[in-house]
Amino acid sequence: MKLMRLGAPGAERPAVLTDDGRTYDLTGRTGDIDGSFLASNGVERVAAALQAGSLPVLDTTGLRIGAPVARPGKVVCIGLNYRDHAEETGAAIPPRPVVFMKDPGTVVGPNDTVLVPRGSEKTDWEVELAVVIGRRARYLDGPTDAAGVIAGFAISNDVSERAFQLEQSPQWDLGKSCETFNPLGPWLVTADEIPDPQALGLRLNVNGVPRQDGTTKNMIFPVAHIIWYLSQYMVLEPGDVINTGTPAGVALGLPGTPYLRAGDTVELGIDGLGSQRQTFQNA
Amino acid sequence: MKLMRLGAPGAERPAVLTDDGRTYDLTGRTGDIDGSFLASNGVERVAAALQAGSLPVLDTTGLRIGAPVARPGKVVCIGLNYRDHAEETGAAIPPRPVVFMKDPGTVVGPNDTVLVPRGSEKTDWEVELAVVIGRRARYLDGPTDAAGVIAGFAISNDVSERAFQLEQSPQWDLGKSCETFNPLGPWLVTADEIPDPQALGLRLNVNGVPRQDGTTKNMIFPVAHIIWYLSQYMVLEPGDVINTGTPAGVALGLPGTPYLRAGDTVELGIDGLGSQRQTFQNA
Repeated sequence: MKLMRLGAPGAERPAVLTDDGRTYDLTGRTGDIDGSFLASNGVERVAAALQAGSLPVLDTTGLRIGAPVARPGKVVCIGLNYRDHAEETGAAIPPRPVVFMKDPGTVVGPNDTVLVPRGSEKTDWEVELAVVIGRRARYLDGPTDAAGVIAGFAISNDVSERAFQLEQSPQWDLGKSCETFNPLGPWLVTADEIPDPQALGLRLNVNGVPRQDGTTKNMIFPVAHIIWYLSQYMVLEPGDVINTGTPAGVALGLPGTPYLRAGDTVELGIDGLGSQRQTFQNA
Repeated sequence: MKLMRLGAPGAERPAVLTDDGRTYDLTGRTGDIDGSFLASNGVERVAAALQAGSLPVLDTTGLRIGAPVARPGKVVCIGLNYRDHAEETGAAIPPRPVVFMKDPGTVVGPNDTVLVPRGSEKTDWEVELAVVIGRRARYLDGPTDAAGVIAGFAISNDVSERAFQLEQSPQWDLGKSCETFNPLGPWLVTADEIPDPQALGLRLNVNGVPRQDGTTKNMIFPVAHIIWYLSQYMVLEPGDVINTGTPAGVALGLPGTPYLRAGDTVELGIDGLGSQRQTFQNA
């Protein structure tokens, strides 16, 4: 299933898109697609309602697509998790996952306008596989337990201002937490539809020019390892989002490639997870 | 006013403590003390209700004290913000605020048990002045605008696992985001009661031994500067919490001083903001 949130920012209605291309309204079944929906077997309840044929079809004409999860409790990011991206940025291959955080308030819809922050000269793109947590994870015994806590997957653009991230603070969060810096979606694709999260192609174009073209099989630390690893340090809660790192091809790693400016358009896609398209504007 | 949340974890009721030592029940006035309460002039409404004498007294006997703000959207921290603490850790005086984040899920009540993470050998303490945001802050014109967005202040213990923070990741968030690592409270003291946030003594004892004894006048970047600075990079929303740094006296800076272990008790106090007392247990 593909869970969605449709409508104006802050007033999205929950919905589900099925393989036949129909969108069904989940209003009345849940207030929202969020941590408490996921924690209360929401995915299973929607599947049962679909099977029973008891959901009304939703007319999606003209409706904006919101982020597929409302108000994540946290957004955890893994840095330098693709060998080619670590190399392009001049960083060593990390011996353990590099963990940092973004302001969860940065999460916006997949096609929303993204703002170039005031004073920015190095606003950059990062296509990433996002994992959405479905069940509480605390000290998992091992990576094989990770699948049991994953609700599903989505595309994430981990937008980054490199001067803020690398020159204006020794900690990266500052350059990762600007307003609108985390387009997410269009869908929360439930885990049953992604049998192998380590076999997904990821692509990103800027103004039609291909910049990133990778595959999740090149992750240094695969999804299951990341979830297990994080659970040894923090509690992952339903609705939390994990950005699992970006492959090569960001502006930081392409000398001479311009960073993002107002008017630029970025398109992202991941196999099975749909696509995003953002136009950038000045904050 | 001193806003509080009283009751079992997840079932706290909102309350207000007044100068005469009485606690009044805010149930019926607001569902909780949170971002939407603060954004909708909740503080002003409570003040008016108190003045009108229309609030019922709450019997607080046996009630646990929760964190005074429910579900912060984010917890932003300023590192190395006291000259003596930067020196004790061997770090240079930072030319700009050092900004990182904690999992907002780490926020617990001021006297709740704090868990020493599994595998921890360097769990450390940090008494800090926490600022709670009351109004949206985005590109403030200058530090003088900061006061207008502050709801109030609280004590924060920015508990930190130094091996996780400094040895196991180049980014600090990993060692700051462990379960229960941010006791907050007991009160959200409204800004009108703290005329000068740069003139507050901060103290912390471990098992009765004084370890930290500082004053906010020694902050490198004062509160108003921090709020203005952050607003140039991210959007601060009502209910967000800013931990403004810790003075000297943490275990990291005191060679030979033991880190925290199960059974240890930590007591914290800040002038006008009350006190906290936590016992540590193994996770």
